[in-house]
Amino acid sequence: MITVKEIAKMCNVSPSTVSNIVNGKTNVSEETRQRVLDVIKETGYRPNYFASSMRKQNTKLISVVVEDLDQFSTTPIVEAAMEYCEKHGYRTILVNLRMYDKWKDTWFHDESKLESVLIPALNEVQSIKVDGVIYVAGHCRNIRCFPKDFPLPLMVAYATNEGNRFPSVILDDEKGGYDMMKYLISMGHRKIGIMAGAPDNIHTVSRLLGCQKALQEEGIPYNSGLTVFGGWEEKTGYTCAEKLAQTGVTAIWCMNDLMAGGAYEFAHKNGIEIGRDLSIAGYDNRQISEFMYPRLTTNALPLREIGAISAQTMLTMLADGRDAVNTEPVPVPCTLMIRDSVKEPASTL
Amino acid sequence: MITVKEIAKMCNVSPSTVSNIVNGKTNVSEETRQRVLDVIKETGYRPNYFASSMRKQNTKLISVVVEDLDQFSTTPIVEAAMEYCEKHGYRTILVNLRMYDKWKDTWFHDESKLESVLIPALNEVQSIKVDGVIYVAGHCRNIRCFPKDFPLPLMVAYATNEGNRFPSVILDDEKGGYDMMKYLISMGHRKIGIMAGAPDNIHTVSRLLGCQKALQEEGIPYNSGLTVFGGWEEKTGYTCAEKLAQTGVTAIWCMNDLMAGGAYEFAHKNGIEIGRDLSIAGYDNRQISEFMYPRLTTNALPLREIGAISAQTMLTMLADGRDAVNTEPVPVPCTLMIRDSVKEPASTL
Repeated sequence: MITVKEIAKMCNVSPSTVSNIVNGKTNVSEETRQRVLDVIKETGYRPNYFASSMRKQNTKLISVVVEDLDQFSTTPIVEAAMEYCEKHGYRTILVNLRMYDKWKDTWFHDESKLESVLIPALNEVQSIKVDGVIYVAGHCRNIRCFPKDFPLPLMVAYATNEGNRFPSVILDDEKGGYDMMKYLISMGHRKIGIMAGAPDNIHTVSRLLGCQKALQEEGIPYNSGLTVFGGWEEKTGYTCAEKLAQTGVTAIWCMNDLMAGGAYEFAHKNGIEIGRDLSIAGYDNRQISEFMYPRLTTNALPLREIGAISAQTMLTMLADGRDAVNTEPVPVPCTLMIRDSVKEPASTL
Repeated sequence: MITVKEIAKMCNVSPSTVSNIVNGKTNVSEETRQRVLDVIKETGYRPNYFASSMRKQNTKLISVVVEDLDQFSTTPIVEAAMEYCEKHGYRTILVNLRMYDKWKDTWFHDESKLESVLIPALNEVQSIKVDGVIYVAGHCRNIRCFPKDFPLPLMVAYATNEGNRFPSVILDDEKGGYDMMKYLISMGHRKIGIMAGAPDNIHTVSRLLGCQKALQEEGIPYNSGLTVFGGWEEKTGYTCAEKLAQTGVTAIWCMNDLMAGGAYEFAHKNGIEIGRDLSIAGYDNRQISEFMYPRLTTNALPLREIGAISAQTMLTMLADGRDAVNTEPVPVPCTLMIRDSVKEPASTL
């Protein structure tokens, strides 16, 4: 069987260049890459990852385990983590637990469901001999069911874990709520409705704390009569907007873009001009926010940053050991996206 | 080391029930699942997939290889394929080629870039001993670079392959274009603008053929002066709508929802009331289409069906051999989503 060295000699490049090309790296000239690929094709050379990994004692393969691929937040985290790994010579493979697809929202308060699919998945990735696991949660919470004795480096993205046994990286939701409220106040709003998510959700609690901090700084007392709790869906956004409109608020901050969509529908149906008559803001910066009319002011989640930091932390653990990294959760700030749905209120109430 | 049989005896269930629970299947009562998981936890039992696969001569593991996870069409295909596999006792693992993320649109007409990452990925999944490969393309076209001698069953989703050596499943784009045009005509439109994608794209060509067929059936001559070619982006949607509005069309069909978003922006900025003054329709049924104002009439892609059919075809090949399946591309129809953006024209021209 032909070897990397022989291919390298035939192409007049170094063996590591051949190896880079075979591993899909892009830091090689188009001409060289084409020449090497042609020779590989002609000779029928096939790299043997297993053999090479046994020689090197590691496989240079990292597993990404996701709670559900179909969550809007998951793919940007995954793509960025994979990009970082690839740029640093690691391949990646993904396992999808399909938690939402299987169990909708019935698994949120029952970790046994998660555990029943997590443990097989972790066994699986061990059996294909990955070097480490990047776990990507579908929503933020404190996860308790990671095996205490898991033998590989493990990194948690978009959630925390019990006792911070593994490093984790999360949204800075408190700052997100703070920044949005500061912005609404700076635009002249004083009576601001808050359309929160589910009351027991970590995202809700952190964002609300941030809001209250901003109000306090500005000397505006928090009034819980102006906060309604929705369920993150467009439909609840409509009914919550209906309730809030009766309180005479000049602006509504919705804790996600889907609920803001429901608030928009309420406004459109009732002849309320968004911006002029009532300002509306969202959170998440989903693609829909750019296509709503008027375009929605919202908070962009640092999803790619969370993915990149996760991969970077994983590679640090692989290079320098697990003690080389801090396991306190790392919060990453959101970015305010100012568009057209928040204007100064027409009159002071 | 403790065995499945011993666990089964301790729990008073059959070994296959233990195996189902360990493999994350959901067809077991909550009580039984909890009891078995508790025993597994207490005993420290760990299934050895590699050993069991060697006994059975196959691994019951299927690899999903995607061109880019971040394409909106990819995750629904993948989720449905994984669901089908899982329901039939197969585990899945995913490899992401990240083609768009790496090379934007520069790889569309140059298969050497795809080949340079595809071949390592296919080698990789062979080295972890999967039973077959489901390949998920990011956009429809005829792919030529699959290795002719690939030793495992391979199934292509969302694209075709040269010589139909492997089975494939695609959108029925011709029918999609036909259905949309028939609908617009049924609503009373005669002068209909078509905002097409890139002219050399298979999606564009098939959808246009369908349109022309519908026009022909209705006795309306096709006028190429009413077709403009955009580049699938919101921005080109705006400029194309500007051009089409000057021709006096009463409706515009945009070949994707992003371009429809651009057409909406043009209408909003120029005081054109969508529906009353100008009807607009899209294609894809992305999430944005439900949040546009008015809600966009569009065509829903059968993405989950494509995923499920791909997995079903794969499992047929694994059970009955590759000759048991037809390798002609299987087209799957779209579904017209009638919302609020198409109305009868105000006056007949």
